This record gives sequence, C-alpha cells and structure tokens, in this order.
Amino acid sequence: MAGSSYGTLFKLTTFGESHGYSVGGIIEGFPAGFLVDIEHIQQELSRRRPGQSAIVTQRKEADQIQFLSGIFEGKTTGTPIAFQVINENHKSGDYDHLKDVFRPSHADYTYQQKYGHRDHLGGGRSSARETISRVVAGALAKQYLITLGIEIHAMVDSVGSISLTSQELLNVDYSLIEKYSVRCPNEKLALEMESYIKEIRKKGDSVGGSIYCIVNGVPVGLGEPVFDKLHAELGKAMLSINAVKGFEIGSGFSAVNMLGSEHNDLFNPDGTTKTNFSGGVQGGISNGMPITFKTAFKPVATLMQSQQTINSEHKEVELSGKGRHDPCVVPRAVVIVESMTAIVLLDFWLRRNAYL
Amino acid sequence: MAGSSYGTLFKLTTFGESHGYSVGGIIEGFPAGFLVDIEHIQQELSRRRPGQSAIVTQRKEADQIQFLSGIFEGKTTGTPIAFQVINENHKSGDYDHLKDVFRPSHADYTYQQKYGHRDHLGGGRSSARETISRVVAGALAKQYLITLGIEIHAMVDSVGSISLTSQELLNVDYSLIEKYSVRCPNEKLALEMESYIKEIRKKGDSVGGSIYCIVNGVPVGLGEPVFDKLHAELGKAMLSINAVKGFEIGSGFSAVNMLGSEHNDLFNPDGTTKTNFSGGVQGGISNGMPITFKTAFKPVATLMQSQQTINSEHKEVELSGKGRHDPCVVPRAVVIVESMTAIVLLDFWLRRNAYL
Amino acid sequence: MAGSSYGTLFKLTTFGESHGYSVGGIIEGFPAGFLVDIEHIQQELSRRRPGQSAIVTQRKEADQIQFLSGIFEGKTTGTPIAFQVINENHKSGDYDHLKDVFRPSHADYTYQQKYGHRDHLGGGRSSARETISRVVAGALAKQYLITLGIEIHAMVDSVGSISLTSQELLNVDYSLIEKYSVRCPNEKLALEMESYIKEIRKKGDSVGGSIYCIVNGVPVGLGEPVFDKLHAELGKAMLSINAVKGFEIGSGFSAVNMLGSEHNDLFNPDGTTKTNFSGGVQGGISNGMPITFKTAFKPVATLMQSQQTINSEHKEVELSGKGRHDPCVVPRAVVIVESMTAIVLLDFWLRRNAYL
Amino acid sequence: MAGSSYGTLFKLTTFGESHGYSVGGIIEGFPAGFLVDIEHIQQELSRRRPGQSAIVTQRKEADQIQFLSGIFEGKTTGTPIAFQVINENHKSGDYDHLKDVFRPSHADYTYQQKYGHRDHLGGGRSSARETISRVVAGALAKQYLITLGIEIHAMVDSVGSISLTSQELLNVDYSLIEKYSVRCPNEKLALEMESYIKEIRKKGDSVGGSIYCIVNGVPVGLGEPVFDKLHAELGKAMLSINAVKGFEIGSGFSAVNMLGSEHNDLFNPDGTTKTNFSGGVQGGISNGMPITFKTAFKPVATLMQSQQTINSEHKEVELSGKGRHDPCVVPRAVVIVESMTAIVLLDFWLRRNAYL
Repeated sequence: MAGSSYGTLFKLTTFGESHGYSVGGIIEGFPAGFLVDIEHIQQELSRRRPGQSAIVTQRKEADQIQFLSGIFEGKTTGTPIAFQVINENHKSGDYDHLKDVFRPSHADYTYQQKYGHRDHLGGGRSSARETISRVVAGALAKQYLITLGIEIHAMVDSVGSISLTSQELLNVDYSLIEKYSVRCPNEKLALEMESYIKEIRKKGDSVGGSIYCIVNGVPVGLGEPVFDKLHAELGKAMLSINAVKGFEIGSGFSAVNMLGSEHNDLFNPDGTTKTNFSGGVQGGISNGMPITFKTAFKPVATLMQSQQTINSEHKEVELSGKGRHDPCVVPRAVVIVESMTAIVLLDFWLRRNAYL
Repeated sequence: MAGSSYGTLFKLTTFGESHGYSVGGIIEGFPAGFLVDIEHIQQELSRRRPGQSAIVTQRKEADQIQFLSGIFEGKTTGTPIAFQVINENHKSGDYDHLKDVFRPSHADYTYQQKYGHRDHLGGGRSSARETISRVVAGALAKQYLITLGIEIHAMVDSVGSISLTSQELLNVDYSLIEKYSVRCPNEKLALEMESYIKEIRKKGDSVGGSIYCIVNGVPVGLGEPVFDKLHAELGKAMLSINAVKGFEIGSGFSAVNMLGSEHNDLFNPDGTTKTNFSGGVQGGISNGMPITFKTAFKPVATLMQSQQTINSEHKEVELSGKGRHDPCVVPRAVVIVESMTAIVLLDFWLRRNAYL
Repeated sequence: MAGSSYGTLFKLTTFGESHGYSVGGIIEGFPAGFLVDIEHIQQELSRRRPGQSAIVTQRKEADQIQFLSGIFEGKTTGTPIAFQVINENHKSGDYDHLKDVFRPSHADYTYQQKYGHRDHLGGGRSSARETISRVVAGALAKQYLITLGIEIHAMVDSVGSISLTSQELLNVDYSLIEKYSVRCPNEKLALEMESYIKEIRKKGDSVGGSIYCIVNGVPVGLGEPVFDKLHAELGKAMLSINAVKGFEIGSGFSAVNMLGSEHNDLFNPDGTTKTNFSGGVQGGISNGMPITFKTAFKPVATLMQSQQTINSEHKEVELSGKGRHDPCVVPRAVVIVESMTAIVLLDFWLRRNAYL
Repeated sequence: MAGSSYGTLFKLTTFGESHGYSVGGIIEGFPAGFLVDIEHIQQELSRRRPGQSAIVTQRKEADQIQFLSGIFEGKTTGTPIAFQVINENHKSGDYDHLKDVFRPSHADYTYQQKYGHRDHLGGGRSSARETISRVVAGALAKQYLITLGIEIHAMVDSVGSISLTSQELLNVDYSLIEKYSVRCPNEKLALEMESYIKEIRKKGDSVGGSIYCIVNGVPVGLGEPVFDKLHAELGKAMLSINAVKGFEIGSGFSAVNMLGSEHNDLFNPDGTTKTNFSGGVQGGISNGMPITFKTAFKPVATLMQSQQTINSEHKEVELSGKGRHDPCVVPRAVVIVESMTAIVLLDFWLRRNAYL
C-alpha cells in the first residue's frame, strides 16, 4: 500500500536508499524446489551496473548479491527469499551541496513536501539504485519462465532521433543486443548511438531514448479481464521505472492514425494472427502471439552543467553538475525492462495456474 | 485478484455482461456523510451513452442508474455503495451468428481459450458496457474531488491524423469541449473530425484517436514512491480501458528526442516550475503543477464490412458486419478517461490523508 | 480495505443494509465452467432465514436469490458473479424509536461516532442480514469443494450450559443435525436446548451458544506459513460473524491445562495422527486430518425487555423491546459458519493450486 | 499472498529461517519524521530472547537489531524500513537427526508435503524465531501509539491450571508484570507458576498457558465493519503466533452461558459502558472502552523425552529430546502478543485517519 510492493501471488517488496546500508527486497510466492542460478543473477546485475562501458556512468559499484533466506541447499523453499546488495561506496560527503537544494526534475522537492524529511544522499529512496532489487527478482523470474519456454528480449530501439524502424523491429537478431554497449541490435545504429551519447556527455548534457521489448513463447490465457489486463499491468510496471514517460503495446500511438480494416489482426486457422498490432494481447489476455511493447525514457535530469534552481528556503541558487552520471539511461535500463516484464509474467502465470 | 477490482482505499469492483441482467459495481471506501448528486451521475452516464450524437453508435440504451446500498437520506454512510444499470435491450438473437466465431482483434478467442466457456452476447464481460460502472464511480469521485479543488478535463486531441498541437493543448478553453459532439475543444478541428468520422462510418470502417487529460488543483504529495507512482497507476487505469494501446505522461514519447537541458523543468521560487514536461509528477509524486497525460485508442475492431475469420472449430468463415457500432471510440471515451482519473486521484488522496 | 471484502483469489465483496433496497455481493475468482445448483443456494438461504422454526425470530423474509452476472447458460464464466436479495419487508416505521437512540451492545454508537451518519433501520449495515451474502458465496464454494471431496459440517454444540461433551463431538451422526430445529445432533440435548430457548424467549431475554465445525476430506497443504495460517484465517472469518466472541482450533483453550506429552499428536505410519488436538492444522497448514474448531456466540443484544440506555444527545432514555428477534442466534448461524469455512477453504485451495 | 505479509497501510513482511543467515523484515507505511528509539526496540527483543531467565530456554542468542533502510539521521523517512537480526548460533549439526524425521505436532510434515523441500534446521521458516521480526515492527508501532495515548499491556494469566480470576484481571497493577520472570502480575501466582514450570522442565515435559491483553486509550472508531472487524483482525494476528490455539475478545467463551440481560453493556451518559463484556469493540469498531482479549497457547511440542514418530519414508522411529527448549512458551510470548496488537492497532489507526 505504501508503494514498495509489486505483484499478487509472485510479489516483490523492495527497500533501500542509494547511500544507506544496503538495497534489497523480499520475494514472496516463488515456487519451491527450484535450483537457483546465482551466477546468472550476478550477471544480470552486471548488465545494470554502472561503469560497465564507456557510455554509462563511471561510478564503481560491485553490486554483490547476498541471499538472506528462502534458499536451502541451493534450492528455493517456497518461503520468502530475502536478499541485499550492500552499498559499498558511501561517499556521502559528495552530496552535502544537495542537502537543502531541490534539483530540477528530480524527486527532491516532492519527497520533501510529502514526507517533511528525506535522505538526500544520491537521491535516497528515489535513486535508480532501487532497481537493483527488481533485477534480482526479475532474474529469478526469468530463470523460472525459461523453463516454461517464455523468453524475454529487450533492446534499445532509439536514442534521441536515432531509431530502429517498425520493420526492423520485426526481424531482430537477438544475439546482437549484448554485442554493443548501447544494446541496440543493429551495428550501424548502435555505433551511431554510442558516438552520439559520447558527444552529449562531453557537453554535460543528457538525452532520452526508448526500449522495445518482445516476449516469445507466452501461452494463451495470461492476464485478467477488466482492470488487471496484461498490458495494463505491464504498463504500470514500466511506468514505475525511473525516468519512464510513456508506454505502448503493439501498435501503440500509431494506432491513432490507423483504420480498423488495417489494424485488425486476422486469424490464421491455428489461432495465430497474420499481423500483430495487438501486441500479443486481446481483451487484456495473451493470445499466444509475441508480446511487444515500447517504453519511453526521458533524458536523465542530472546534468554536468550548472542550472538555476531553488533551495529549501525557496531562494534561487546555482546548482553545478558533480559526480558521475549517465548521459543516457536506456543501455542500463534494458535489463530493468526485462526484469519487470518477467515479474509481471510470472505473477500472471501463477494467477492462471490457480485455475488449471 | 481476478481483475475486476481497482484501488486500495477507494475501491471499485465491477460486474456485468453486455447482455446479462445488469452491469454495476460496489464502491468501497467513499467518505461518509457526502450528499450525492444523482442527477450529475446520470449526466455523466449520458456522456458515455450510445446514441447521443450523429457520430457515435445509434444503439438505444437508457442507462438508468439505481443505487442498492450505501446512501441513506441522500448521503453516503461510509459503507459499500452498490449500484446497477439494468440492461434493457437484450436482443440476444442479434448475436447468434457470433456464438462460435472469433471476431478479429476482439476478446472472443482469448476468453474462450482462458475460460473454456464464455458469454458471447455482445462481447459479454469484455464489452465496453462494463465502463458504465467506471463512470458511476468516477462521477462520485469527481463530486468529492471538486470539493477539494481538483478539476479534471479530458478531451479528444486527435482522430486519425487530425490533431491538436502541443501548443494548442497548453491553452485549451474547457468550455468548448462539450460543445462539439466529438469533444475536441477547437471548432475547426472538431468539425473536421466529425466529418471525417462520418465518412469512415459510411465506408463501414473505423478509425483511432487519442484523448488528452489535464488535472488542475492537485496538491503536492499524491502518489507513492517506487511501484505505485502516480503516473504508473494512471497508466494502468488508462490501459485498462477497452481499445487503449498507449499512455504517456507529460512529455511522453517526445522525451526520447529531447536533451536534459531542454526537458528539465526549472523551478520558480514558489516551487512551481517554468515548464511542465514532467506532467505534474516527479519521482511518482504530484508536484502541484497540472497533471497532463495522453491516451491512445485503436480503431474499433467491429467493422461494418465483411472480414475473413475463424470459428471455434478453427475453420475459416466469413464474418459480416452487423448491428450499430462506433466508427471512432474517443468521443464517448472522454468521460471514461475522466472517471478513471478521478478514481485514481481519490484513492491517492485518501492514501496520503492517512498520514496527515 | 474498507472491510467489506474477504479473500484473495476467491473473493467476496458484500453490500447492503437491513432495510435498503437489497443485500448482495460480488464473487470474484470462482472457477469457470461450473454448473451452478441454484436450488441448493436457495436451500442454504432457508437454513439462515428467519421464521424457519418455533425457536427463531418470526419475521417473514423470503430471501429470494437473483444473479446479476457471471453465470451464462447455467454455468459460471470465470467473471464476477454478482447477486442480490431484494429486501421485501421495509417496515421502516418500526425503527423510528431507534433513530436517535444507541442500543446497548449494538453497533449504533460506534457507527455513529465513526461515520457521523448512519442508517439506523434495523441496524443498517451492521445487521446480520449482511450474512445472506456470505451464505450465497458459501453455498457456491461448498458446491465446488464437494467435487473435491471436502465436506463441511457445523452444528450447535452448546446453548447456555447445555452442551455436548468433547467425547460426543468425536462421534457425531451428521444426519441428525438438520433433524432438530436447534441443529444439535443429539436428540436429548436438542430437545432440552429447544425448550430452554423457548423459556428464555418468554422472559424477553436471550442466551449465548457455540457452534462446532468439522471439515472432512481436506488434503495436506492448505494454508500458508506465518501470517496467513489456515486457522488464523478461519479465526478471522468466524470472528467477523455478528455476535461471535471467541474461536478455538482443535484443543483450543483446553490446551492451556495440558502437558506436551498429552497434547502431541503422534503419527501413524501413513502420516495421519493418533489424536487430533491440532485440529487438522500444523504450522498453519492442513495435515490431512479433520479440521475442527469451535466458535462462541454471545446472547443477542436485542431484548424484549425494557433497558436503560442513552440517546444521541447523551441523555438517558428507556428503551423498550420491540419487533421479532432471535432469543438465541446459534441455530441460524450454523449455515453461516459453514459458509465462511467454505469461503476460506476454497481460497486456500486456489492459492495452493497456483503452485501445483 | 504467500502468507508472510501482514497489514494494509502499516504493513510488515517478514523473512528468515531459524538457522539461515538472518531473520528480519520490511515495514511499509510507518509515518515519516518519527525519531526512533532503537534502545527500546532492543529491550523489547530482550523480552522475547531465550536465556533471559531460569524458566525459559537457555539457548544463547544476542538478537542484535540492524536497520538497513528507512531511517535517516535517526528519523523515519516514510519509505520502507528494512531490518535484520543475524543468526549467530548456526549449530546446524544439532539438527542432523531431524533431517528426515517428522516431529509430532510440529510443522515438519506439513511443510514437507506442501513444498517438497524444506529447511529442517531448527524448524526453518516455521521456527518461532520468525517472531523476532514481529517484535521489531511491534516495538516501532508501540512507540508511535504511545504518542497517541494508546497503551498495551499483555500478561500471563494462566499456566496449566494456575490462573488469575476474571475479577483479578479487572484490577491489574501493570508494574508487576515484568517483576516476575513468568510475567504474571500477582506475586503468589507468579511464584507458583514459576515453580510449576521448573517442575515440568525437570520431567522433560511442557505445559500450556494463556495471555491476557488490555489496551487502554483506544479512541472510538478503530476497526472496519463486516469482515475487517477490529477483533477479527486481532484474532487473526494472535492465531498467527506459533502455538496459539484460541482467541477470545471480552466475555469470549463465557458468553455462551450468559443471558443477554447480563451481557449487555449498559451506557453511561458519556458513552462509556458500565460493564465491558464487549471487550471494547461493538460491531467490529472500538467503542472507547479498554480492549481486552485472551489468547491460548498449547504446550510446546518439543519435549525432552523420547517419543515415537515417523520419518520421511513413513517408517516409525524413536525421537529423543535434544537441545534447549522452553517448557512453557507464554512468558516469552507476552511481548509477541503486545507486538501483534500494536501492529493491528496502528494499521487501523491509519485506515481511520484516511477519512478524518
């Protein structure tokens, strides 16, 4: 109810501030008797980790996962799986200049007004470091989903105006995604994006981007009618990720300018459809076609430029850029999108399973 | 859990099929002692009602609200408010031809596969008639929010390629919205949209559209961190409406192609911001600026043309268009967008109130 | 959240006041494709109905069930099942004398203080008429559970000091329960209880009682660890019934005065236990033995005697007994105990099923 | 949903096994800006801790609390408060003899059947060590409630047949509770209970007991109608504590043998009542009188005697008592009862607050 829990049967509750003792969470409702691949979880964390490439923030964070409960002799027990990643790099002195300052387009002001008291170190609870916990739960969910034949692939499809076409998105070679540090599965565009991001960084600026996600192998029947539609939950999950401003399923906003006679996905005799403008969901329920959606990320609000802003006494102050920050968030967000997708799908899988 | 409930403290659970006895719902958690304006609820239902103008479906449905509980001597009692609208127009014979047929881009196939048994009359539970219940709960929520100074205005901002510009959306005269049957607050565009919709209808086709919503008077502090961010819940609420394919808050998808130095909303000394790319939400919490978002609707799947499709024996059949349907859903969906917005905001209001 | 919903996967939300238009509810999460026996539901309502025998209230209430949604061609569709029972007997004039009076040991005072505004007619929302909705949902749950081999038998085991012994409870002939209007499966005690209740009624007084419930055929594994233990949920469900003051599982309060060496239920090789002081639950999870528990009901607060009380201006007033009321609530509460038990068990069944 | 979460607005999710890395939890929804008294939390843990007196288990466990998030500069931030107590005493070798054995009246058998895989060390997740997390959350809740004038006092009122009378419970000197290691506020009975427990321990046996709890200073209006009645939630909370077999509010089971004319709590003009058989709750809502309830605990299942039992191959085996265990659980459970009471009340406080 207070916002840090997600899911119904498969449920993640997260905790932790950027510069507190640790970030972590409790996973409830993961099936028992599952052999956990800890190495894989650590690899997923590495995909999110700062400092992994030349185009992301150069902060050093080891992000070592530690499980506190719920796994016995390597296998899940069906009871809550708690975990944490200890925050090693508490250079809180770095943030003294932000104690009484509200950074533009950050959560500083709203947290201060809502709670009257906030941890200002590195964004505190509003830091994207919270997403570590989502990646851990998502990695576990992915390990389970893969045994069911469900595969999730997210990728960067645009950075600024450099963008894959809809047509290109229909024919992605997934093996290319991790080949480029920007995680766009197209050599030419990937290199263009990378050099554009470097250029933006030099200017002390940042730029937006978007992530496309495709899920193959989803059976018919996941999702619930009315309010808990599959794409409504996916949308909520994506919009809950820091910096996300938009979500679309299947045809998305392009549907506005389409006719019904173009947009309708006609059936093949086996129940698959000839097109997939629906994005794999009809009436809120998966129809067995690939689930496809796109998520828009704004440019990171922290700039390496000086900006005019206000402090807690509502006086105007000059804010200078400091520290090490991402000029573009999407390369590191790919694994977060995949993780939230996995969490949503495993929850719906279990919800459906209750009735089989 | 099974999908027909929405909200936490202010909660709506809906029931009903298009051609069952009635559609309705139970509202839990509405404040006690509130004098209900039933006339206003009925008016809101009229904004959703078929047959209200020349550009929507000409089906006749009176949609008379009946309250079953929770209101005593005109005032809410704090206990569940149950209501129904009896379905008068049970011409179930109209649907015999659909009993074993799966209409393209409808929920027929997914419901059949998920449940093994479905009410096929007029879409049954997947019919947009379910949104009657949302309008009732939304009308109540609006009546309460208005006493708090919170005003919600939704409007059609595009039909096909006919569209208001971002600049025009910044200066809307709300009094024009209801003046045109298409509910676009710009005379020239409204008339253009209306004639385009009529043309589409003549062809037996349908077209998409989008709805822009602005909420004024929201205090700082609504919304919860992490998963239950204000715009994440709004997104879920919008995506749960039939035919919605996309949602964006503030700058939305246009943020992809913006620089941080453009996108950051700089503060005025009073805590307001000079721009509002954030759409009134920072870190998932309202910042006191207007909340602005856009919702994309696909073209209605029911066409007055014949289409190729399959039946329950997975044989190809010809489906002919029959009945009376909307060529474009957005004019009638304006009140549904407002209603879901009101439901989300009242819930967050109460959640915040618990801590004041 | 506002108190009128119960359950997680199988969920009941109820509405309605004693003298409002109707009482009813929405059932979510009932499995699809189930052929509903409406006659059985009506019979269950008859077991709760006033006027069914000489020892209960002589009010006339037909309590005719009407389904509003969720059942198509006689079978459940998997979507919400809404229902109502219209309140025929609105003799609201009967209650004018209670408008500003707080009856002792009723909810009049607490509702008034909590909500500032209440429906005083026959107790309004706090009336036991609300339990009609529980009986409807419970009847459906029972119909499903019986197909799984789970049988629920509740019975009156004491009225005042007239009581079955623990030994007698181990050997009940279930066929005797409905034979006596008091629903105690022992001829001698049943007749004694009935004549005692009649005597109490003549005096215008009321008396307490208790209900014993045994569930046979429950598989191992229902219930969740820690907070959602099977007996904790059963306890909550029973304590939520009007007039209930106590709940005990298995040995219950008698365990206080037992030694571990007496109380431990030793295993048979097949996993059953030689004794059942656990009441069929160990560590919050069913162990395959019969689930046994007892629920204590206070004497009905409405007396046919005059009592001293206070009014809404906090002045002392004389309250005279009026109307037709139960001198002892347990005979009619047997079916309510069974219904809540069925609701709890079906919910846990589905929760377990999600992981099978 | 999987059972390890409790509460709605104020919510506790716990994790941890007896011999895993740590036990702990996440507290959501605690008000922001509250100065936490960590020393007090540690003291409350000491009241639960083994080895605190001659009549409890002599295991050595320091139970040092560590906060991981949610507290900044000594004050709560309104975000999740995570905490853990590291399990220092991993003598897992102690439990090798239990790996394949099901102890009578323990959760070994039911966990094994439900999950197929369990942590058998010291009971794993079913160990009462889980209640450490409840005490931490309860201590925080208590600190907050005391600022609202709400005081909770639990005490041992019976061990075996040694018992305080109802009359004595009406006049308790709270300062005596902690004076005796058995936590019964009556010198004569306390000493009797202590010597009885020592005697039982010598025999390698265990004995049951009960705990009485009184809450003073509760305002009118806490609790919700119908399913979430105040005493129904208290009942669930108590029944979720290990070894609890029964719960009663106010008159409880003694109401069975009372007349309405005796049991009704007549009002004083100020709205208080002359008697309190209701236990401070009417219609599920607090009426301003003290909340009084009793909880029954079974004798501990672990005996220092040999017992006949079965192993995982369903063969009969001899189980010998080993380790250090409580002969009677109630002295250490007093603080757990208080903690769960505090958790329930703070949750209802916030739920009511949402509407003030």
